[in-house]
Amino acid sequence: MSDTAPWITFRPELKVLDCTIRDGGLINKHLFTDELVRAVYDTCVEAGLDYMEVGYKNSAKLFSKKEFGPWRHCDEEDLNRVFHDHTAEKTDLKLCAMADAEKSDFRDQIVPRDQSVLDMIRVAFYANQVSDAVEMIEHCDSLGYETCANLMAVSNVDDAEIDTVLDAIVATPADVMVIVDSFGYLYREQIDRLYKKYSTALEGTGKEIGIHAHNNQQLAFANTIEAIILGSNRADATMAGLGRGAGNCPMELLLGFLRNPKFRLRPIVKLLQDHIIPLRDTVEWGPLVPYNITGQMNLHPRAAIEFRAGDDPDNFVQFYDKIFSDI
Amino acid sequence: MSDTAPWITFRPELKVLDCTIRDGGLINKHLFTDELVRAVYDTCVEAGLDYMEVGYKNSAKLFSKKEFGPWRHCDEEDLNRVFHDHTAEKTDLKLCAMADAEKSDFRDQIVPRDQSVLDMIRVAFYANQVSDAVEMIEHCDSLGYETCANLMAVSNVDDAEIDTVLDAIVATPADVMVIVDSFGYLYREQIDRLYKKYSTALEGTGKEIGIHAHNNQQLAFANTIEAIILGSNRADATMAGLGRGAGNCPMELLLGFLRNPKFRLRPIVKLLQDHIIPLRDTVEWGPLVPYNITGQMNLHPRAAIEFRAGDDPDNFVQFYDKIFSDI
Repeated sequence: MSDTAPWITFRPELKVLDCTIRDGGLINKHLFTDELVRAVYDTCVEAGLDYMEVGYKNSAKLFSKKEFGPWRHCDEEDLNRVFHDHTAEKTDLKLCAMADAEKSDFRDQIVPRDQSVLDMIRVAFYANQVSDAVEMIEHCDSLGYETCANLMAVSNVDDAEIDTVLDAIVATPADVMVIVDSFGYLYREQIDRLYKKYSTALEGTGKEIGIHAHNNQQLAFANTIEAIILGSNRADATMAGLGRGAGNCPMELLLGFLRNPKFRLRPIVKLLQDHIIPLRDTVEWGPLVPYNITGQMNLHPRAAIEFRAGDDPDNFVQFYDKIFSDI
Repeated sequence: MSDTAPWITFRPELKVLDCTIRDGGLINKHLFTDELVRAVYDTCVEAGLDYMEVGYKNSAKLFSKKEFGPWRHCDEEDLNRVFHDHTAEKTDLKLCAMADAEKSDFRDQIVPRDQSVLDMIRVAFYANQVSDAVEMIEHCDSLGYETCANLMAVSNVDDAEIDTVLDAIVATPADVMVIVDSFGYLYREQIDRLYKKYSTALEGTGKEIGIHAHNNQQLAFANTIEAIILGSNRADATMAGLGRGAGNCPMELLLGFLRNPKFRLRPIVKLLQDHIIPLRDTVEWGPLVPYNITGQMNLHPRAAIEFRAGDDPDNFVQFYDKIFSDI
């Protein structure tokens, strides 16, 4: 047995991305106050995090500004209002936004990097949208951004399709390819298998592998650790795990695991106390029983979200029976 | 890359133990109603579980019957009242109780197996109590019981002491030795290391290795999976993770992972809905921020439990500062 203890050391190249506002906004149509968004930003700076994903660069035609808050579109004027003092001199934190394939007017919405507070664009796509994603990545790269490819719902994509996506992404300038467990379905053996697949495809390209886990089975943190142990150098997390449905890997747990002294936990604990836990009065997230069930079944959490918004949200047996009668 | 998918098959020799009443009773001094205990029992039977741990065989001198409920002592008359119809003809479920080293009047409290509904005694002990534990195991074995050795708080025991405990347990008739992460501190690399240590020591003895995980860092289920993947054939879980502090590995998640068709999830979902989730009105458990912090620090959850019972239980920053100033 080895007597080394890798869990008390760290890899300096491992970078942490906070996606609290981006993923959490899927619960409430991104209707966060500027105060909350700014509190998360200030916390990311104080905690020494590497990236903060502040929202989506998605189309106002598809997501009307009447119905959705500013972090669904991330207009430059909104970014400049809230992050007016954001500079590389002041902080190492980089800001980024996500753009969904086929849901973003990316040629109009995304300005050159030197005209924006954003440093990175993450392109999210389903396997069948990979060609759109490639165009988006190339476009954003040409505007000067770091880019990242997020193949969503990978637990529902078959091996041949994953291989084809990886081949397509390898040929792009994307800096990172992220393992995205949208349904919170994957067990650690499956994370291992996907990691090996991704790392084999990306070998020698200099691209990093990221991990974005959901918490349907209380495995978001564990699967994030697993990917990190295997070699992932980009990890996504959110404050108190805030995120659609079961939520995400909790930042307060991830920072406890990482031993890089540049990360500081106390600002996160303060943010949870002052801003995030109080959100529970108006928005719900976490690994509740209906999310356990959709996670186990490799299903989109949609049915569970609708059930929790319905008339009898604690009737777990009814939900269980419905899900099993539908398959 | 292997194209096998071990996560959809099962090992028939893997046995699941429900310790909802035993571990959950540490929250409320085992003051559960007979109705609740019986509901858990009926659910264990319906769900096809292998063992149900119904409480402690601990001393009424140390835990007075005025203050503590019957499941702290598991007197035979209480067992016979609630489990009056329990027979091996009716169900494969076996009942067991835990006895703590130096807290049990085991020579008086434990009757011969053929006079009890219990089939197994699990002996819980700290490393320095191993000699007492060995006596207890030998005594219980001589009374006809299956026996199990639970070295508690293993994350606080140094390697040489663990080795000495393992040597002592190897020489006993104990059927199982359990990896017990009392503080919810261990990451998967540490589970791996302990599993290798236990399995090396127990090799060739026929003894099984068990896993009992706590959920301070939302890793109870993940670490249970990990131990199972490595070869553990005994896994502990509780309904909705009910248990002291952050609680335990949730049974509803574990059964989703195990693919043995003898296990049935629906009765568990019904129990959660009817009995366990409603308990949240009067008892608290789960991976709240103070438990995250004690877990990360490898501390007993005592300080967090006291904090949550105090005047300002949501002042996480105060708790964080207190813990860090104490170390």
